[in-house]
Order: sequence, then C-alpha cells, then structure tokens
Amino acid sequence: MSEPWALHPDRALPADPATRPVAREIYAATRDLPLVSMHGHVDVTVFSRDEPFGDPAQLLVVPDHYVTRMLVSQGETLQRLGLGDMAETDPRAIWRRFCAGWKHFRGTPTRFWLEHELVQILGVTQRPSAETADAIYDQIAARLAEPAFRPRALLDRFGIEVIATTDPAWAPLDEHAALAADGYGDRVLPTFRPDPLLRLDRPGWRDDVARLAGASGVEVTSYTTYLEALRTQRARFAAAGARATDHGHPFADTTPLEDVEARRVFDAALAGTVTAAEARAFGGHMVFQMAAMSAEDGLVLQLHHGVVRDHANGPYNAFGPDLGYDIPVVAEFTHALRPLLGAFGHHPGFRMIVFTVDEDVYSRELAPLAGVYPSLKLGAPWWFLDAPDAMRRFREATTETAGFSNLAGFVDDTRGFCSIPARHDLARRVDAGYLARLVAEHRLELDEAVEIAVDLAYRHALAAYERAGVAQ
Amino acid sequence: MSEPWALHPDRALPADPATRPVAREIYAATRDLPLVSMHGHVDVTVFSRDEPFGDPAQLLVVPDHYVTRMLVSQGETLQRLGLGDMAETDPRAIWRRFCAGWKHFRGTPTRFWLEHELVQILGVTQRPSAETADAIYDQIAARLAEPAFRPRALLDRFGIEVIATTDPAWAPLDEHAALAADGYGDRVLPTFRPDPLLRLDRPGWRDDVARLAGASGVEVTSYTTYLEALRTQRARFAAAGARATDHGHPFADTTPLEDVEARRVFDAALAGTVTAAEARAFGGHMVFQMAAMSAEDGLVLQLHHGVVRDHANGPYNAFGPDLGYDIPVVAEFTHALRPLLGAFGHHPGFRMIVFTVDEDVYSRELAPLAGVYPSLKLGAPWWFLDAPDAMRRFREATTETAGFSNLAGFVDDTRGFCSIPARHDLARRVDAGYLARLVAEHRLELDEAVEIAVDLAYRHALAAYERAGVAQ
Amino acid sequence: MSEPWALHPDRALPADPATRPVAREIYAATRDLPLVSMHGHVDVTVFSRDEPFGDPAQLLVVPDHYVTRMLVSQGETLQRLGLGDMAETDPRAIWRRFCAGWKHFRGTPTRFWLEHELVQILGVTQRPSAETADAIYDQIAARLAEPAFRPRALLDRFGIEVIATTDPAWAPLDEHAALAADGYGDRVLPTFRPDPLLRLDRPGWRDDVARLAGASGVEVTSYTTYLEALRTQRARFAAAGARATDHGHPFADTTPLEDVEARRVFDAALAGTVTAAEARAFGGHMVFQMAAMSAEDGLVLQLHHGVVRDHANGPYNAFGPDLGYDIPVVAEFTHALRPLLGAFGHHPGFRMIVFTVDEDVYSRELAPLAGVYPSLKLGAPWWFLDAPDAMRRFREATTETAGFSNLAGFVDDTRGFCSIPARHDLARRVDAGYLARLVAEHRLELDEAVEIAVDLAYRHALAAYERAGVAQ
Repeated sequence: MSEPWALHPDRALPADPATRPVAREIYAATRDLPLVSMHGHVDVTVFSRDEPFGDPAQLLVVPDHYVTRMLVSQGETLQRLGLGDMAETDPRAIWRRFCAGWKHFRGTPTRFWLEHELVQILGVTQRPSAETADAIYDQIAARLAEPAFRPRALLDRFGIEVIATTDPAWAPLDEHAALAADGYGDRVLPTFRPDPLLRLDRPGWRDDVARLAGASGVEVTSYTTYLEALRTQRARFAAAGARATDHGHPFADTTPLEDVEARRVFDAALAGTVTAAEARAFGGHMVFQMAAMSAEDGLVLQLHHGVVRDHANGPYNAFGPDLGYDIPVVAEFTHALRPLLGAFGHHPGFRMIVFTVDEDVYSRELAPLAGVYPSLKLGAPWWFLDAPDAMRRFREATTETAGFSNLAGFVDDTRGFCSIPARHDLARRVDAGYLARLVAEHRLELDEAVEIAVDLAYRHALAAYERAGVAQ
Repeated sequence: MSEPWALHPDRALPADPATRPVAREIYAATRDLPLVSMHGHVDVTVFSRDEPFGDPAQLLVVPDHYVTRMLVSQGETLQRLGLGDMAETDPRAIWRRFCAGWKHFRGTPTRFWLEHELVQILGVTQRPSAETADAIYDQIAARLAEPAFRPRALLDRFGIEVIATTDPAWAPLDEHAALAADGYGDRVLPTFRPDPLLRLDRPGWRDDVARLAGASGVEVTSYTTYLEALRTQRARFAAAGARATDHGHPFADTTPLEDVEARRVFDAALAGTVTAAEARAFGGHMVFQMAAMSAEDGLVLQLHHGVVRDHANGPYNAFGPDLGYDIPVVAEFTHALRPLLGAFGHHPGFRMIVFTVDEDVYSRELAPLAGVYPSLKLGAPWWFLDAPDAMRRFREATTETAGFSNLAGFVDDTRGFCSIPARHDLARRVDAGYLARLVAEHRLELDEAVEIAVDLAYRHALAAYERAGVAQ
Repeated sequence: MSEPWALHPDRALPADPATRPVAREIYAATRDLPLVSMHGHVDVTVFSRDEPFGDPAQLLVVPDHYVTRMLVSQGETLQRLGLGDMAETDPRAIWRRFCAGWKHFRGTPTRFWLEHELVQILGVTQRPSAETADAIYDQIAARLAEPAFRPRALLDRFGIEVIATTDPAWAPLDEHAALAADGYGDRVLPTFRPDPLLRLDRPGWRDDVARLAGASGVEVTSYTTYLEALRTQRARFAAAGARATDHGHPFADTTPLEDVEARRVFDAALAGTVTAAEARAFGGHMVFQMAAMSAEDGLVLQLHHGVVRDHANGPYNAFGPDLGYDIPVVAEFTHALRPLLGAFGHHPGFRMIVFTVDEDVYSRELAPLAGVYPSLKLGAPWWFLDAPDAMRRFREATTETAGFSNLAGFVDDTRGFCSIPARHDLARRVDAGYLARLVAEHRLELDEAVEIAVDLAYRHALAAYERAGVAQ
C-alpha cells in the first residue's frame, strides 16, 4: 500500500481492456448527476435541526449495523461498540476497535462506502488500522466541527436534489413543516410507514393505534374508523410532500378479506383476542387496502418483505431491533401479489415498487411480473444486495425479461447520511460496467447505454416516485 | 447511431480480447449448420397451406407475447395492439405503436431476435422509431408479398432441416398428411400434447375427452378406454413422424396411483364430482403413465412445469390465454421425479427431456439428476431464460455436474416462424462465448470446444429426439 | 491436441489480459503451501496399513462416484464398472470403459482432477481414449508398485500437513492409535460422525446403539445413558486428536425438545414404536445437543444437509449407498438454525461450520448469518459445487455480506486420496482468479489479496478447526 491514501478513479469498473474504456465513458455521464434519494432512513431531525454530527464513532460506527455486525462476527461485542445499557462511553475506544477491525471489511460494499466517506468527504489520508486510529479520529473530529460539515451544507455539497425520510404513520410531521418553513419543503420529503399498525398481534399495537388516532384526530373504535384514520394521515403526508408509502411485511400475501371478516378480526384485535393466523391474514388484507388507497391518492406503494427480524433473541432483548440480526428467508411474489395486481396492476392511478433480499425471485418472478404489469416497477437491489457483484447479478437477472423501462432506478436506503454519495457512486459505477459490457458485446449502442445509465441513476428514480396524476 | 443499419458480426460474443477470437472460431463452426427445431409452436397450417404471411403487425407484433407484454408494461393496451374484441384493426397503427416503443426492448433477447429478423431476413435498413415506422412498414409489406417469403421457401432459406409442431392429442393430423403428400413428411413433424386431457377438473375436460374419442375411434367410458384412446393417438402420431410428447403441468409430481384409485378418480371426473386434490394426484399419475407409454413406443417425453398461467384474471377474461401473463413459480424436481425416474430412469426404451423457468434447480436438482440417470436429458433454457445472460448462467450452472453429453441441445420453442433463425443464431453465439472462455482458461482444448458446439447446436438436438429403437 | 500431454500453467485462471497476470501473482503465493485437509473420507487404514494402492481402476474409477455416475448417465452400468454382486472382475476392462468415456467429463471438475492426477502424480503422457487405455493402464500399474506411491510417501509428496478421516461414533480408534505410535498422531486425525445414531427410525439403529455402548463402555438403556455414551466417545475422539464432529442430516432443524419429551421419544425408539415425526424432531433436538457438547469440549460442529440420499431405489437395493444417486433439495437455514444459534451463536467455546449444496442460500441466508454470529463459519462449496464456476459463484455470493474472515477455508471432502492435491490446486487457482478481479477492479490492494488467498488456502483452514480453548 502506497501512501497517501487515494481512491483509484476506475474502482468498481470492469477490468477487461475492451470494456473499461466504454464503462468510463458511460460513468462520466452519470458521475456528477444530482442525487435522488427517495427511499431512506436518515432521521428528519438531522435536517430540521441541522446540528453538527457527533464524534467519529457516532458518525460512522455505532449506528451502522453493517459495521457493527461484521465486528461482532469477529468477536467484538455490541457493548464495546457503544450500544446497550452497559455501552462503552469513550468514542475513541470504539473508534480504535473499528480501525483495528478494518481488514474484516475487505471485499464488502461497506469498505467501498467507508473509503469514499473517509477519503472523499472527510479528507482522511491514512488507511484505518490500530496504529492510525487516533490520528484519523482527531482529523475527522476536527472536520465535524466545521460549518461545512453540517447536514444542510452537506445536502448541497453532496448534490442531493431531493431526499425522503421514513416516518411512522402517526408522525405529526412538524419537523417537515419546519423544514418547509426554511425552504426545504420540496427537498426533504416524508414517507408514510404504517407497518406496526397493520400487525394486529404485535405487543403495543393498541398504543400505536392510539397514536394514530391522536395524530389523525379520528377516534379509532372500529375497522372503519381505523381505515379513515389511515386515510387522513396519508392525506397529511401527501400534503407535506410525501410521494410514497413503505411496507415491510413478513409475508407478501395480498389476499383481501371480506369486509365483514376484516371488521370481525379488527374488533378481536381491539379486544385482545386476535389469533396469529387472523393477524397474518389481516396483514395481507391491509396491503391490498393500502394499494386501494394508493390508487386513490397516488402515493407510490413500496413493498419489501422476506426478512426474519431480530434472529437472535439475546441481542434483541439486550439491545433492541435493527442491530444486524435481521436475516432473509425465501420470498414469494407470483402467488402473493396476484390478488393485488389483479385488482390494481393496470390501474392508471396505481404505482408500486418491489424490493427483495432473495435473489432467486429476480428472474423467476419479479422480472416476469414487472415485464407485463404497468403498475409494477422493480426496486434497486436491497440491503445485503446493494453491493457490486449483487447489483451486477440483479441487472443480469432482470434486464433480459423486464428491460430497463420497468425499473425504478437506484435508491440508497440508508440511515448513514454521509454514505449516500458513496452508495450512488458505487451503483453508477456498477451500472456503467454492466452497460459497457452490453455495448462491447454489440447488444446496445453506446448512446443507448448512456441514456439508460442516466435513466437508472436519475430520471427513473424521480419518475418512479411521481405521484400518479400529480406533476412534481 | 450510424446508418445504414447493420448488425455487428461479433454481437453477443464476449468482449474480452483473449476470448473473442476463440469465440469467433467456435461460432464459425456452427453458424451455417442446418437448424433442427424439435420443439416449437408454429401452426402446422403455416406449412401445409404455404400462404403468404400477413402484414408486418401480424407477422411481428400481434401474435408475439414477448412483444405485446413489454408494450403493455409501458402503458399500451392489448386492444391497441390488435388483440381482443375491440381490437385495433389498422395494422399500420399497431406497427407505429410498436416502433414508437422500440427503446423498451433494449437489453432483451426480443431486441436481438427482431434486429435479426428486420435486417437479415427482411432487409430493413432503418432502426424502428416513430419517424421510421411507416417506411419500414411499407418495406416489409412489399417483401411479404414476394414468393420467396412464403413459409416453404423460408424453410429452405432458413436451412431448417426438420421442424416439429405441437398438436393436441386429438389432432386428426390431416395437415401433416397433406405435408407428407407434398414430400414434407420427414421435415415437418407433429408432437403429441395431451395436457388438457390430463387435468380432470378443467372446465371443458369432457368435451376434450369426446374429441379424443372421436379422433381415436375409441369410445372413452372408463379409465381403461381413456388410456387406450391415448395409446391409439400416440401410435397415430408416431406413424405420422412424431418423435416426442410435450407436457406442461402445474406440478412435476409423478407419483402413480393404484390402478383401482385411478379408475375411481377417472369415473368421478366423468361424473363431474372430482375434487381438485384428486385431479392433481391424477395429473401426476398420468405423467407416470405417459412415461410408461414412452418406454413402449419410444416417443420422447418432454416435461416443463412451474408456471402460473394467466396470472391476471382481467386480461385472461377479455383476451384469452397466452398473452404474456404466465408467471413462473418455484419448481421442484428431486422429489417430484423420483417415482418416474425410479421406474423408468434406466429403461433403455425411455427418454425424457426436462425444461424449467426456475433457474434455482439447475445446479441443485437438474444437473445432478441428468448427471446420473441415463434416460434424462436437460432441455435448453426455456422461455424467459432463452436469453444471452440466462443461457450463459445455464451453462455455468449445469456443465460442471452434468457435462455436455447429458444436454438435449438447443430448442427454439417459438410461435414466431421468422424468429427461428435468430434464436438459433443467438444460442450458437452464446455457446461459442461460453466454450471460448473454457478454452481461454485452459479447461478445454479448442478442438473439443468445436465438437461440443456442433453437438449442442445440431447433433444433440437431433439425437435427443430420436425415438428409442427407431433409426431416423 | 498436441502430444505429449502437458497441463497449462495458467489453467483455470481468468483469461482477461488485465486480470490474468494478477491472478498468476496471487496463485504463486499459495501454490506450494502445505495442504490442510480437515474434512475428508479417506479410510484411516490407507494410512495405518500403508499398503500399495490397487490397480488403476480401483484407484481412479470404481470408488469414485463422480466418475461412475457420469459413465452411468451415458449408458454404462455399475456392474461393468466393477460394482455390485455381478461386478466386472477384470480391472483392465473397467479401465478401458473409463478411457472410452473420457470425453463425457469435458467441462467438469472431475476432468481437471483426473488430468492433474494422471499427468502430475502418475506421469501419464497420453490422453485417455479407447486407443490409449492399455498403455496408460500399464504405466499407472507400474507406478503403483513403486514404494514412492505408498500412501505415507504420498502424504509427504503431496505436502499434506494434516488430514482428518471421518469415523463412526463407535469407532475404537485403534487404527488412529497405531498411527500415533508411528508418529502420525498429529497428522492423521479422526472426526466424530454420529449420524446413524441420531436417526431413531433407521433400520439397524439399535444395532448401532449397541456398537456405541460397546465402544464407550456405557450401557445405553435410556436417553441419559445415550448422551453419556456419546459424550464419552467424543472425549475419546478428542483425546485421539479429533478437532471436529460431522453431521449430515436430512433437515437442518435444531429445535430442542423438552427433556421429558426427549426421554419419552428415546424410550419409544428403544421399544421400536417411534414414529417418523418423532424421529425427525429428535434428530433436530440432537443437533442442538451436539452443539451443547461442542460448547463444552470444543469440538467444531460441521453441519451439511439438504440431500436426498439414494434417489433411485433400484441401484440402492442392488449396490448400496454412495453411488452417485444422492440428489440435493431445497435447503433452509434461517429458521432452522435459529434455536441453535440463539443458544450458542455467541458462546466463546462453540464453533460451527456449515456446508450446503443449495446455492440459493449463499447470499440469502448463510452469508447474512455468518456475517454476524461469531460462532458460525461458512464451509467451502461442497460436493457438486466444488467446481470452478461454482466456487467463483460462492465467492461472489458470500463475500459482499460475510467478508473473508467468516469463511472456514478450503476443504477437499473426498474419498480419493490422490485427488486431494488436485482439489486444493483448483481451489487456489479459482480463488486467485476471483481475488485478481477484485484487485483489477481496484476493490482490493494486491497485498491484501495475497494475504486473503493464503488465509483461504491455509490459515483459515487450520484456524477454523482449532478446538476452542485448545492450542494446536
């Protein structure tokens, strides 16, 4: 390794000498495009309060479950990485553990993203290691104190044209209102996420329903008022600029219940007597209902499923959710989406984007579905699959059946604000490489490939999240 | 894009400069081989009547569900593409819609096939677009009026040595008799497809049984006479040159029923009281029976399964089947074929070819099965998987376990007669590229690769469809 | 083909001119490393008796089910290949059949391994064919008579630092004791395999329990004494140098039973009244118990599942098991391992290595699991997947989520002693090619790639099989 640390301009482009020059040319057309970040998990307060980021460990280690899970797999503990009741309180100690474990990220997209953040955004010039940890810590800490590293300044520096947050269905949206008052109303948008409200047998479900009632002003005493409260909040979100709803269910089933059965099950949930089977059936029913509402109000329905959350009970009980213990399982869409697509798949006011962490469904189910239903777009490779080789496999598995016009474009889906430019950059490089291969194999013309690359990086990402019938 | 439109000689060959020259050399050995088309869906009357093809839209758009599904996914309707009761009647309007949507086919095999047809067969010199639609329409229409574009003339021009049609089990085969009288008896062969007869709970099943009875001259009043009628028709097909039967079932299960149970279920079907579960069990039983008959008469059993037909009820009710709404689901072969292969997998008179649209079974199930059972061959990548990257994945997933000797060679499986040369050409290019990589990686010698390429393109395709014990 | 036969130094390295030189450099760093063979099936008597290998057919054809299954798929019979009651007794006749079928191995790893064995180990200078069969036979037979071709001499020549055998749980381990007496105690290690004892409804289960009782000296009359006997034998194995246990179950389920239920089911098995469902539940329970014992004694738990053994009843009844008729089915790990990993996944004394023949679980389940649970390592691509393209797919599907530090390194898993160097060599070449691509795409530095290659080929293979708390 030669110093100083610099990133190679051709990283993540294909090596083959017949393809790389083409990839470079395609990448050059997308590299500097604005970033459209329509599906993300950065907290809205980051932008509404615009406070400096914390220390290096809080910025890059503690909240990033990609980082903590890898270090845990190698023997670190969540405590020592700053999580839980007995958490390490010295950020420098956490940062040293991260730097000492740097080698474990080799070959992962986390390594690519972190390199990008450290070098391109934070100006670090040494590779992380036990020896360099303190120097890098000091360097980053100094940067984070500068005004140029406040969130809103970074929004500009990163070239983020628009970014969506994800918000509970009962969110009062006052932070978004504050942003709008500051002129960020078209740039930071809320997303309606009702998941906890749709799972009737969750502990705490009734509390969440009470929150929904409070936010919407609709007293929820029945299935009918429950739907009304949801509809009211959807309208509030839409008025606040929301373009989409987000649904992460354990199962993709979308079979609607008879109205009388839906009422009965909902009442049982209110009475605390709902069964797991009833709750599951109601969950599928409600995805169908969400689609029906989308067909009315034009909010784009995003569906992702097929993950066992909190696989390890021990860490979950000690530290809570979202700590890297969510593990994918087999997904199924052909049967599961049939009721929903049968009802709304050709509806001019309905748009739906599907994500999965089960690659098997790409060529078998999702590409064939998206290749015929006008309402359905394929989302970008999600989560563990947001990685160079996995993104390439996604293209190879979906394009031949669904083409490019049925894809929703890139989404970054991250809590890590500073990783957003890196994630878009990596996707643009990988897409340039894939498209360059098609050009080099004379399966596309170069001008077509450039047009597609810009679509995937930018235009599709905007268009897929346009509310039907609403010009943005 | 430079004009005039010409196809690059290296298209779909690998770009890597160490591999492409080898691929060219291998492709050169297969490019001009005769076409063997043993599994197809061109209507026999195309050949028996030898009438000119219709207009450009009828030739290339309306009957091709690959084309119409992509245009529908982008907002066109089946009506506006010439389908259904309220169909567009102006072929030129349909053609314009197709040309305006040309960009949506980027990256798909449909684009490759259409380019081949337009440029190589029809002599078109402009790329399709809204602007060029009319000129191209006129050019194609003029061609189709020439005698050289009649089906039999194209059989010669395309170098089709032999082509199989797919015919219902009750087909009278008089069109094939007429072809035989014209000297085409060894060149256009029927294929026995009994699917509707094997699904006892289909609406219309009894009508189809009556058709079988009428064709075979066997009055079908029981399970025994039903088998006899099927056997009689198989013999007629074999006498008319058939080499194979074709079976597309929802499930691959092949568990035989006890004879007494088979009789009981069949009687229930005649009485209209059969249950879905009984019908499903009987379907698996009948695949086993078809294998038993194959072991007697030598017709090769082709099995493909794992597709939900007519996924969208709306379009199905309005337009009928085969309109692009067939969507794959998970397939399973290891358990499902165990009864059949246990009974006939080593039978010297039995041959079976399996197709799937679920790639997952390639390396997990199909290659291990074909790599040991002498009666089983793997069919070519089917349907959505008949595409460059998917074909490459098929080779990569099956060769290491099954080798090349257990593969059935290429089949085109199309209704589009004029797409046949393009489909074979693309498969030959992709195979040349795959084999060239093995040569360039010193995993094969060049002379071996050439021999394999010719096997896959031609010799295996003939040999896999030789009736056991019958020299062709 | 030019003569004399020589193997290309770059075989199985990538062809792309930008990648190959990097691959050569990485491969050069691992080519001559010692072989660590911690999961294998060479019979211990091969080493303890150190007798000359038999004839060429007995060495390379008859016991290798990769070879016999391919020849059977092409019409040979197991009898004619030297197996079963009516077996061919002339080894030269068997050898000729193998040589005549040489072409069927094109594209398979068997071909690579055999080439390596024939050319590099046995000095053969002609390619196998019907014409060359006799000359090659004589040449190999002469070699096998030389002292340099005895097993212990080959241990040295192959550079095998340590090799593990697989032994039934009731093994007396006297052959291993004899090896220890000869100074091979640290070099040839036993592995504890209790599978037959854990499947209560197997015919012969009680006989095997009696064997366990005999070997352990613990009279097995109950669930408690059964556990005690297993624990006793595990301790014997550990004392004899064992590092691991090996478990091949039909299902990966690891749900523990209540103690009282385990006792009840075990008693039912002793009484001969256990049901298939009870036996299956008990099997999952016992994998959990084996993990509990591993957490105590530090033996590494190896789990592989998802195979239908003896798919064809006919050959099984005539020839017995392990003849190439084992066919994979769908595997599932996320749900199945949840109980076990919940209990032991973070236990400092527990180590587990998982193998699969279902590629679908790589990116969906295994990499996400190994990427967070410190006790879990991913085993090398297994069985049908121990092949160049399949190994590359394994890397591409697992690295981005699990990195390299969560991998167990290469295992050869073979009965064929002379194929061991070839298998390691092929894996090192494929890994060099994969890593070279990451370097050429600027996703890794070259020095990192070299370090990883050495880890995968050697250091991880040792470390993954270190007993927790026991320095080797």
